[in-house]
Amino acid sequence: MPLLPSWIDSANRPDNPFPLNNLPYGVFSTGDDDPRCGVAIGDMILDCRAAEEAGLLAFDAGPLFDVPFWNEVMEAGPDLWAALRARLMVLLGEGAGERAQVAPCLVPQAGAMMHLPFLVSEYTDFYAGRHHAFNVGVMFRGADNALPPNWLHLPIGYNGRASSVVVSGTDVRRPWGQVKSPDHALPAFQPSRRFDFELELGAVVGMASDGPVTVDEAHAMIFGYVLLNDWSARDIQAWEYQPLGPFQAKATATTISPWIVTGAALDPFRVACPAREFPLLPHLRDTGPMLYDIDLSVTLTPDGGAATTIARTNYREMYYSAPQQLAHHTTSGCPMNAGDLLGSGTISGPTKDSRGSLLELSWGGKEPITLDGGVTRSFLEDGDTLTLHGAARGDGFTIGFGTCAGRLIPALPDPYAR
Amino acid sequence: MPLLPSWIDSANRPDNPFPLNNLPYGVFSTGDDDPRCGVAIGDMILDCRAAEEAGLLAFDAGPLFDVPFWNEVMEAGPDLWAALRARLMVLLGEGAGERAQVAPCLVPQAGAMMHLPFLVSEYTDFYAGRHHAFNVGVMFRGADNALPPNWLHLPIGYNGRASSVVVSGTDVRRPWGQVKSPDHALPAFQPSRRFDFELELGAVVGMASDGPVTVDEAHAMIFGYVLLNDWSARDIQAWEYQPLGPFQAKATATTISPWIVTGAALDPFRVACPAREFPLLPHLRDTGPMLYDIDLSVTLTPDGGAATTIARTNYREMYYSAPQQLAHHTTSGCPMNAGDLLGSGTISGPTKDSRGSLLELSWGGKEPITLDGGVTRSFLEDGDTLTLHGAARGDGFTIGFGTCAGRLIPALPDPYAR
Repeated sequence: MPLLPSWIDSANRPDNPFPLNNLPYGVFSTGDDDPRCGVAIGDMILDCRAAEEAGLLAFDAGPLFDVPFWNEVMEAGPDLWAALRARLMVLLGEGAGERAQVAPCLVPQAGAMMHLPFLVSEYTDFYAGRHHAFNVGVMFRGADNALPPNWLHLPIGYNGRASSVVVSGTDVRRPWGQVKSPDHALPAFQPSRRFDFELELGAVVGMASDGPVTVDEAHAMIFGYVLLNDWSARDIQAWEYQPLGPFQAKATATTISPWIVTGAALDPFRVACPAREFPLLPHLRDTGPMLYDIDLSVTLTPDGGAATTIARTNYREMYYSAPQQLAHHTTSGCPMNAGDLLGSGTISGPTKDSRGSLLELSWGGKEPITLDGGVTRSFLEDGDTLTLHGAARGDGFTIGFGTCAGRLIPALPDPYAR
Repeated sequence: MPLLPSWIDSANRPDNPFPLNNLPYGVFSTGDDDPRCGVAIGDMILDCRAAEEAGLLAFDAGPLFDVPFWNEVMEAGPDLWAALRARLMVLLGEGAGERAQVAPCLVPQAGAMMHLPFLVSEYTDFYAGRHHAFNVGVMFRGADNALPPNWLHLPIGYNGRASSVVVSGTDVRRPWGQVKSPDHALPAFQPSRRFDFELELGAVVGMASDGPVTVDEAHAMIFGYVLLNDWSARDIQAWEYQPLGPFQAKATATTISPWIVTGAALDPFRVACPAREFPLLPHLRDTGPMLYDIDLSVTLTPDGGAATTIARTNYREMYYSAPQQLAHHTTSGCPMNAGDLLGSGTISGPTKDSRGSLLELSWGGKEPITLDGGVTRSFLEDGDTLTLHGAARGDGFTIGFGTCAGRLIPALPDPYAR
């Protein structure tokens, strides 16, 4: 697919992540005004509230941009999603007849502050990257039992904490928690010493359901995708997670990118899931290519230092697609809602430099990695900024999400020493 | 504490669960009107919307009852909670001066339909009853390793699915799911054959927090309690839960009682947690009696049959209190919100007839229980109604929650046979 040209010149640069082909959805504010919905185009943002007030965005569903989140658009359903995208193509495409009316609704990205693009209804995190599951399994259970017996038959998932989801740029505070060293008889309460990131893609559910849905129906329910960093306290997790799974280890924060890239924008980049070792049961069966070819990378920037790329991988490395995860999520009759967020699970590739967590990159802390400048890391240090990058590369254009970044700030003083 | 007399005679009967001492909060509708907030008093409901419109309930926080849920009251904070309860005592107590104005705001419970009393923000379920954890552990891991190593040091919890919480009276459909029999090499997708209940108490968080809180602060944050049945598909759980915990096994439905009994109403019934085998770390340390003496029982009613009481226990059997669970929940910095619901975990007592799940009562299906009339049950059958009952018994009065009931209806036809 070629670049779709826009009358906003910056959108036509091959390396700009927001060409007309993309049109991702976010929420922004400027110094003098409240948060409102916007669409990234080149180095500008189309202020949707202003565009709606100017009569440029008018749909039967009624006002959509009088609120600072995208949930109302989601709830209006896929016909509206398509109509909105088509209308944005007309307003922002080369040769647009309404340039004079649109221009006053454009705001430079450089001066904008980004906010959470949607109200997160509930957050589910999966464990559906095979290389990650295998690596973690080897470390914890040995190579012979690395993949749990159920892993190749269903996308393992657990419910996370929606209240902890934050937008890129939000500082993340090192958590306290209960941990137990193998050298001690009793647990201790202390700041996490093995605080980590997880490179994931998040799928944003746009339509509600109240019974089991098929993989194809699930695909249609997904509004878009964000980059997602599932911050993880490995020492807290190791002590707490048996038998009911991760809890406080994953509840400090989950950072997402500021822009939701829609399924429509990613459609030209669909790729198939890998060959199946066992045939999947009917509720999970592949019905078409439902992964995406999205290059992913991770940079780590120490306080005052330079950024080092510590991992490069691709979303096509997943074993289960987001529609498969969502279909599985509904099998029990579990109601889903617009605004539900599904983390893919850590996206590691097959090679050592394609691993999506420090747990894997430093092999449980035994093989620290070296950053540019010579400092080493096993897990994150205070002041480190961890940034996820994602790009689907078309013919002369790039689809991006904006970065997904967070800086680790020091733990509080002992919150219970009072 | 003695009965506080009301001018509504039915509230003064020793066996009525809604005396002036109680004043629990629910949401109800009548045939001719929308859902609205109400307070149970004897066999009547005070219509809070009508009372507010009549000027009987006026607070600085502004209108509280223009919405059909209690979250706005919660968010107004504990001073308002106390002021509202004090005002209700005046309006409904013996000798009230405004009887003539209050009387038109009373609606008979008999004709009312109950709805979810609050918007559930997020739902967390704990595993904090020692007898239950021990029984399940013996079945799954043997008596020597029954309690996981972390169990006596922290309240194990996992995030559940808020969208699946329903009010008492809602039918529950037997779920489909992926299960694997030990006799088969591969899993199958089929209706659950081991569908179960779990007898729990739910704590309703009324105040938000964004950092670690102490047990005492957590106690102050809890708005009230509900009966809670955490429906569980044991066969789905057995296959899916390693390594990240229960997911679809617990996502079909969680039923709660229609009335939230406030912390203030339960205050006279506070009792201490049991003696500690290991001292608890500071963030969990006991600071006073924070369990409640609440008699609990479970009845099972086959389709067209009579109710049999299958278990009797008491909330004082818990090892960890709800404030301890909530404090633990915040240790990582996890933000909490008004409307968060915390399930206690299954409340089994020490004896065979005090077990709070069929998994324990039938010992994994090996020892079916016999109901009145001679039929037996290992797990729930289609058409069974499962009802939880709770009562705190004062001197001449009873504090109740209303029942927490749900009927199991047959599974759908294969949702993927299309």
